[in-house]
Amino acid sequence: MFRNTSERLVDWGDCDPADIVFYPNFYRWFDSASRQLFEAAGLPWQELFARYDVVGLPLRDATARFVSPARHGDKLHIVSEVEALREKALVLKHTVSVGDRLVAEGTEVRVWAQRHPEDAERLQSVALPDEVRERLSRPD
Amino acid sequence: MFRNTSERLVDWGDCDPADIVFYPNFYRWFDSASRQLFEAAGLPWQELFARYDVVGLPLRDATARFVSPARHGDKLHIVSEVEALREKALVLKHTVSVGDRLVAEGTEVRVWAQRHPEDAERLQSVALPDEVRERLSRPD
Amino acid sequence: MFRNTSERLVDWGDCDPADIVFYPNFYRWFDSASRQLFEAAGLPWQELFARYDVVGLPLRDATARFVSPARHGDKLHIVSEVEALREKALVLKHTVSVGDRLVAEGTEVRVWAQRHPEDAERLQSVALPDEVRERLSRPD
Amino acid sequence: MFRNTSERLVDWGDCDPADIVFYPNFYRWFDSASRQLFEAAGLPWQELFARYDVVGLPLRDATARFVSPARHGDKLHIVSEVEALREKALVLKHTVSVGDRLVAEGTEVRVWAQRHPEDAERLQSVALPDEVRERLSRPD
Repeated sequence: MFRNTSERLVDWGDCDPADIVFYPNFYRWFDSASRQLFEAAGLPWQELFARYDVVGLPLRDATARFVSPARHGDKLHIVSEVEALREKALVLKHTVSVGDRLVAEGTEVRVWAQRHPEDAERLQSVALPDEVRERLSRPD
Repeated sequence: MFRNTSERLVDWGDCDPADIVFYPNFYRWFDSASRQLFEAAGLPWQELFARYDVVGLPLRDATARFVSPARHGDKLHIVSEVEALREKALVLKHTVSVGDRLVAEGTEVRVWAQRHPEDAERLQSVALPDEVRERLSRPD
Repeated sequence: MFRNTSERLVDWGDCDPADIVFYPNFYRWFDSASRQLFEAAGLPWQELFARYDVVGLPLRDATARFVSPARHGDKLHIVSEVEALREKALVLKHTVSVGDRLVAEGTEVRVWAQRHPEDAERLQSVALPDEVRERLSRPD
Repeated sequence: MFRNTSERLVDWGDCDPADIVFYPNFYRWFDSASRQLFEAAGLPWQELFARYDVVGLPLRDATARFVSPARHGDKLHIVSEVEALREKALVLKHTVSVGDRLVAEGTEVRVWAQRHPEDAERLQSVALPDEVRERLSRPD
């Protein structure tokens, strides 16, 4: 399925007093990498969400495994790929490395979501549009 | 095992254009809740890391499940508990709710880590000190 | 004019490799303190922005002076006050201390803003509603 | 004096519920742009701070003026320049634009700092090394 690579420089402020990346930042980068994957697939979020009147692709589940530390000044290489397309959700996998060294990998399960018509406090997942399904199932 | 509760107000800047919490923030709050749990157990990180000459409690794995959205102005109630104490690692579980509504839950696997003596770029996990093991295995 | 105090615990992830607060976080806390000041004045943002159909209180200017370092585990005491009410903007001043020690102080100039009717990419400042002006000019 | 340009893609999570950049993020980007300026001048922070045994370049003052909104998907162009070199501090100026449109500009006053020898809780500014002064005073 569709796959994209992106780069990210680790900033001073991304690191904690142990001088390694503060782990929640990896999820910021996963989120950014997902957005970049959509854009590379011809599906920029800003237009896409407006066109289908959805609030975005909120997370249902996320996991990550941290293998080796990254530090400020490191250049992260991130490979992102669509791992599964379900009816109302999709699974993205991100693999982060510095040079040859694996740093972290994680998955995001995201739903295609609208505000619930009877309760704006809730979100409801709806079927992925064909356009999205089709573009993300192509090999890159 | 040891258990602690904490509160967190969701800020405007914690939310994304869909007006729900940007999900990496939950991990920031898990990290903060873990630090608060240690402090409540009589193990403040600043002193603890200096006393044992460790770099901290870096993550090996993290998972989260997002059940319902949280918004700015929401007051999060976070229950954090030690789920397992392994030889060189521990597992923490965090459950986040707003009033009666479950918002998210997640687990963190953290290692007790020093810099590798032969390669400062690497970290190595070492055995949890008895003091830490003992205090975290107490019921709260 | 109106004044409010709030507390904030400095988290591990708020600090950088020098083990002091990464300075952009102070602005996150100023923003949060501003929101809390409005709430204490009976003007919660979520309701207020919906009622007046504004996008929020975007910043026009911000300044800060950093006097002494704050570290993880520190409890910040933040005094926030309305310094000036202009026609379409207001000035907030925040003073951050740890115990008796001054840590930082800053000002935010915020505008009461709507989307520009002819260009959604732009914002335009509009007159502060009387309700807002009146509540924020009260002494606390 | 020395000058550097950098690029930054605005992420979904950088934006708030008004769908514009949450303003503290500009300071994260200023910090990153400062680090990149040093690197471009042959002064990578990681090596530099270790070589001179300083804790970094903590902020004494920061200001910013926000001229027009930036949104997710926007590509920021950041021009950073050394505006002044003082005995123990330096002033950096950052100008952020999207295409031809000015978005924000700000200044950072940073000190060259060590831990105070008699009180690790305090920092003290020391004279900028000649190497730093010399490299940053070159035109780019």
